[in-house]
Amino acid sequence: MSDRFTVTYRIFAATPDEARARAEGIALEQTVEIPRDVVPAGYVEDEILGRVKTLERESNETFNARLSYSPDSAGPDLPQLLNVIFGNSSIQKGIEVTGLDLGPTLSARFPGARCGIAGVRAATGRAHGGLVAPVIKPMGLSVAEFALTARRVAEAGADVVKEDHGLANQPTAPFRERVPRLAEAVAAGNAARRAAGDTTQALYFPNLGGASTDLVGDAFFAKEAGAQGVLIIPGLQGFDAIHALARDQSFALPIMAHPAFLGPHVLSDDTGFSHGMMFGTLMRLAGADISIFPNFGGRFGFSPEECAQIVAACRTTEGPGDPILPSPGGGMSLERMPEMMRLYGENTMYLLGGGLLRYGDRIGDAIREMRNTLG
Amino acid sequence: MSDRFTVTYRIFAATPDEARARAEGIALEQTVEIPRDVVPAGYVEDEILGRVKTLERESNETFNARLSYSPDSAGPDLPQLLNVIFGNSSIQKGIEVTGLDLGPTLSARFPGARCGIAGVRAATGRAHGGLVAPVIKPMGLSVAEFALTARRVAEAGADVVKEDHGLANQPTAPFRERVPRLAEAVAAGNAARRAAGDTTQALYFPNLGGASTDLVGDAFFAKEAGAQGVLIIPGLQGFDAIHALARDQSFALPIMAHPAFLGPHVLSDDTGFSHGMMFGTLMRLAGADISIFPNFGGRFGFSPEECAQIVAACRTTEGPGDPILPSPGGGMSLERMPEMMRLYGENTMYLLGGGLLRYGDRIGDAIREMRNTLG
Repeated sequence: MSDRFTVTYRIFAATPDEARARAEGIALEQTVEIPRDVVPAGYVEDEILGRVKTLERESNETFNARLSYSPDSAGPDLPQLLNVIFGNSSIQKGIEVTGLDLGPTLSARFPGARCGIAGVRAATGRAHGGLVAPVIKPMGLSVAEFALTARRVAEAGADVVKEDHGLANQPTAPFRERVPRLAEAVAAGNAARRAAGDTTQALYFPNLGGASTDLVGDAFFAKEAGAQGVLIIPGLQGFDAIHALARDQSFALPIMAHPAFLGPHVLSDDTGFSHGMMFGTLMRLAGADISIFPNFGGRFGFSPEECAQIVAACRTTEGPGDPILPSPGGGMSLERMPEMMRLYGENTMYLLGGGLLRYGDRIGDAIREMRNTLG
Repeated sequence: MSDRFTVTYRIFAATPDEARARAEGIALEQTVEIPRDVVPAGYVEDEILGRVKTLERESNETFNARLSYSPDSAGPDLPQLLNVIFGNSSIQKGIEVTGLDLGPTLSARFPGARCGIAGVRAATGRAHGGLVAPVIKPMGLSVAEFALTARRVAEAGADVVKEDHGLANQPTAPFRERVPRLAEAVAAGNAARRAAGDTTQALYFPNLGGASTDLVGDAFFAKEAGAQGVLIIPGLQGFDAIHALARDQSFALPIMAHPAFLGPHVLSDDTGFSHGMMFGTLMRLAGADISIFPNFGGRFGFSPEECAQIVAACRTTEGPGDPILPSPGGGMSLERMPEMMRLYGENTMYLLGGGLLRYGDRIGDAIREMRNTLG
């Protein structure tokens, strides 16, 4: 059995010869990045150089090429693995990454989510039913205002109290002032919930939106303060920020990934990644436990098919690592919840953001209604 | 004078009303991310909410919208500033970022390159002429083989000896074994050059391609070992990795940025960033001193106009911070050097990669020929 890992690229080309030339070009570009005739014989040519394993016509203008690479070309680090998958070739039009098979060596090196669907459910205490994640927002409010909302939604039955991905270190609510107060508020909500006989609890996920050099320190600060998970934006902090925390045994909290700044990687048909690769496979590879994506029918333009592809990539038992929770958000009104539940089912974390604010002081009622719909 | 910062978006819309609605949508999306009717009165509405300052028709299907944002919406950190510029809106089709004006507060907070063109020139000792940067590659060779090439090109007159962006921690040449040996090799080349009466020197730039949590440590390790600059891939490590090192006074070495994994942000006409924004403005904002981009006419598809836009954005005196060196690479044969020099001029770092390997043991001759062409 080969130890190499395999990446599938959709190549836009008119003829088999052109597609073959492009595939061979990718094999060079993503590894040695030198002309074929100067590739050194021996280890570099035999092991490091990418190989075109298969090339199949998909349509009049597209081909699917499977290329294999040596684990040695990536080494131990995720940034370099991503670099081999799609570093320089991302700058050439007409190439889209649609598949990844890690093979045995890289599967051991990148074991994926620490918690996965089962771990997140265990932490909430909710064995069945869709999971509810109201969002704490908007930026510009005070810590006290955020805390009030956090307590209300936690008490009302939220599974995750997620901070808006735009909460960083703004003057009205900087991270290290905000997080202990919101952790307390969620704990108070959970205490009230327990007192009422509820065996589930809300997990508080602050956003690690500060400086990259503070990210790990902020994560542990949050854990110390009582947070039970974190939100990370890999488009801004790098996928390896997720990986670093997912692999840290002393951290061991679930990680939710946000899609901000990653749009261009999926919006174009002939470059970037397929939706499933970006918001399913890559998030799992990095070690995310929950992957947020823009729901269809809201203000983002993803189609139902693209959303289904993301969900399938999050939940497949074929890896990387354990299945994770897809988390649709955007345009998630209470009215749409029954439809959403029918489509996405229970192993889903349903985000409810701006629309929730319309309920004002009755925000808890909205959470309770949502919970009822989600089983 | 307003303290707010301004972002220009090209919006693809058929009518002024549609364009206006989309612009107002961006103002919400990039700040409060809630419906307009629930934006809290007072500070959030008056200060935090984005504002559409101007909206002008550009063509039948495009409009230019200038939006202003509060420095408070970004706070002190670059990830959140990028999040306000284009976080969620990056996931909507038909929006391209084409301009950024930091305003006074953010100009002080994000002062740009530490070295800039003048600083890099001062470090090399070369006051005039194009700068030459041969690339150490391909991955899979041994440290000794890399060191031999590094010494040869340094002795022959290279200004920067740049590592391939694919050199990370692969088994044949991991970072902490490789960097001290290559630093020594470049120092030996420089010593020979000095002995021959040359007053310039080659700067060695290793690639920080390892784990994100090692990045700052690796940078200081490299500096201790004798490196005189570093290469960073912001598409993989995050733009803030550049920022963190650029703002660290005890580091203070020039930083070269590589475009890998960023292609989808510029390849599509109706999403992402303009070429000048991505490879000029954003790199300067982060604090890069040298910005690599794919030269036209090579194996990447950038047009001469797109390259000219990048060069202009790197060199403009209008910021962010001081002008930086554009660094075209890809398809940079010696034969094309005179044409390149006429087009790009002397304040340019010319990358020469795979083609250089064709010279084998005579690689020094190629560097000398390149130097002669570049003045």
